[in-house]
Amino acid sequence: MTANSSNFADRLLEAVREKKNPSCVGLDPRIELMPEQLKETSLRRYGNTLEAAANTIVEFNTMIIKAVADVVPAVKPQIAFYEQYGSAGIRAFEETVRYAKSQGLVVIEDAKRNDIGSTARAYADGHLGEVNLFRDSEARIFDVDAMTVNPYLGVDGIQPFIDSCKKYHKGIFVLARTSNPSARDLQDRTVESEGRTIKMYIVVAMLIDEWGKELKGEKGYSSVGAVVGATYPKEARELRAVMHNSIFLVPGYGAQGARAEDVVHTFNEDGQGSIVNSSRGIIFAYRNEPYRTQYSSAKFRDAARAAALDMKREITEALARAEKLNW
Amino acid sequence: MTANSSNFADRLLEAVREKKNPSCVGLDPRIELMPEQLKETSLRRYGNTLEAAANTIVEFNTMIIKAVADVVPAVKPQIAFYEQYGSAGIRAFEETVRYAKSQGLVVIEDAKRNDIGSTARAYADGHLGEVNLFRDSEARIFDVDAMTVNPYLGVDGIQPFIDSCKKYHKGIFVLARTSNPSARDLQDRTVESEGRTIKMYIVVAMLIDEWGKELKGEKGYSSVGAVVGATYPKEARELRAVMHNSIFLVPGYGAQGARAEDVVHTFNEDGQGSIVNSSRGIIFAYRNEPYRTQYSSAKFRDAARAAALDMKREITEALARAEKLNW
Repeated sequence: MTANSSNFADRLLEAVREKKNPSCVGLDPRIELMPEQLKETSLRRYGNTLEAAANTIVEFNTMIIKAVADVVPAVKPQIAFYEQYGSAGIRAFEETVRYAKSQGLVVIEDAKRNDIGSTARAYADGHLGEVNLFRDSEARIFDVDAMTVNPYLGVDGIQPFIDSCKKYHKGIFVLARTSNPSARDLQDRTVESEGRTIKMYIVVAMLIDEWGKELKGEKGYSSVGAVVGATYPKEARELRAVMHNSIFLVPGYGAQGARAEDVVHTFNEDGQGSIVNSSRGIIFAYRNEPYRTQYSSAKFRDAARAAALDMKREITEALARAEKLNW
Repeated sequence: MTANSSNFADRLLEAVREKKNPSCVGLDPRIELMPEQLKETSLRRYGNTLEAAANTIVEFNTMIIKAVADVVPAVKPQIAFYEQYGSAGIRAFEETVRYAKSQGLVVIEDAKRNDIGSTARAYADGHLGEVNLFRDSEARIFDVDAMTVNPYLGVDGIQPFIDSCKKYHKGIFVLARTSNPSARDLQDRTVESEGRTIKMYIVVAMLIDEWGKELKGEKGYSSVGAVVGATYPKEARELRAVMHNSIFLVPGYGAQGARAEDVVHTFNEDGQGSIVNSSRGIIFAYRNEPYRTQYSSAKFRDAARAAALDMKREITEALARAEKLNW
């Protein structure tokens, strides 16, 4: 198995194994949380403009990526924080993805896109594949390794992404069970399914398992993964029972409240199958304890690296305690 | 009631009344379907680049908007068709929105965004409100009148958009019932709700009705609307019974199969409350009969205008037959 494997799930799991770290840094740039001195440079060069905002984001991300590239296998840029600055922000997103890939990181775009037919194909082409230009020529645009998608429209909304995964060796993570309080509004509803009553999120999990069958890699995992909030052990076991071969993308570590003990249950018994994301807790570590005392804002990179190493250690120790560590 | 009303629902319904037309043109630009001569101009100027693609899109949209601006009250750009070209495409989206607004059109962005917490706020800020720049200054980015959102994450994923609607007098349309075949995967599931069993899309409809209560305008409709695929009369009546005060955004007219008789059921008895969208059927009318025989590709604008006028007439006649016409 090499990092050039033609299956996304294989590539991701191999990257996890190389770094001995199933965690992921969320690149959710928020200018108001960035060190002042970084902003001053952009402001002086570009004035108080969207270009300055975009430039600040690229500078910040580049430094964070450099600081964590040998620690984590993957980054997860949340496109909302770029898109909010319009075309300038999307340019910053494109540059961030390019730089992260150049540093050998797997890029999982958090976009939660969803639509049907030619519209879903346009999303899949732009984010995972190639778009039509003129005279039958094509161009790669975002070219991320994987992206998140929303399942509310059913398989019609997922198939175009699966087609791109096959053609371009990419992956998707389908929203299954989020851990926000109002997940219960729809996801926790009790649904009739072939004579049984089950939760809605289990229906979605069954669909994800089904959709993933054609994209299984040599390591036994599918390139159709699931977004699963860090949650109660019982729910994680339930979801694992249905989606044995899906890689779970688990957001919400650290700043959003999930601890290593909480995420361990999302891993399979083989110690594989989950990638845990922390965003603010890593990239803005310098703003909060225990890092704040140790690192000035000028040292935000060192704080991010320290937080990424702490997260790796915490998850490794929790996996070891659960007898799931396999390296 | 003026077009400057501070409530989106009022503004939209007033625009419908002024034009005597509850329909909407979908701006879903697809370069491969555009007239060759239009592409040649961009190609000569920019070469085979993303800039040429973006320029072609802006040129095409500008001409379509000019051709239909006095016929329809609103346009619905589907951001996927812009986003697929990356930052260049998003620039084309921004220019399209600006131009459509300058021509007095209501702009409903089809984006189906969804997330929670600060991420949902970033989407709401960028698309409907204002984003943070430096030194507490703010900037308006997309500034559309309304956008579509996906409800899978529950109210946590909707509230940030509702907050922006209140602050900036905007609207949202929440996906309720789509008319694609696999809508049944999730939306048609039978769900237990307070002792009754109902369809999932009715659960969503009840939530939309609830979410919309704070944003009702003087005309009695809420700025929290619903995306409802043109569907069977029975379903439309069911949805109307639950969402009496929501404006329905009804996609799929024309090229996607829905006829005037199908969409009439989505209107309230007062003849209001729906806005029906056609995309390909209008903007690429020149490619298909009955327009193809009459209009050369050089006359694609005239074909689009003729198709928009035909759609207006068809819906008006169907509303009259159903005794729902109120102007």
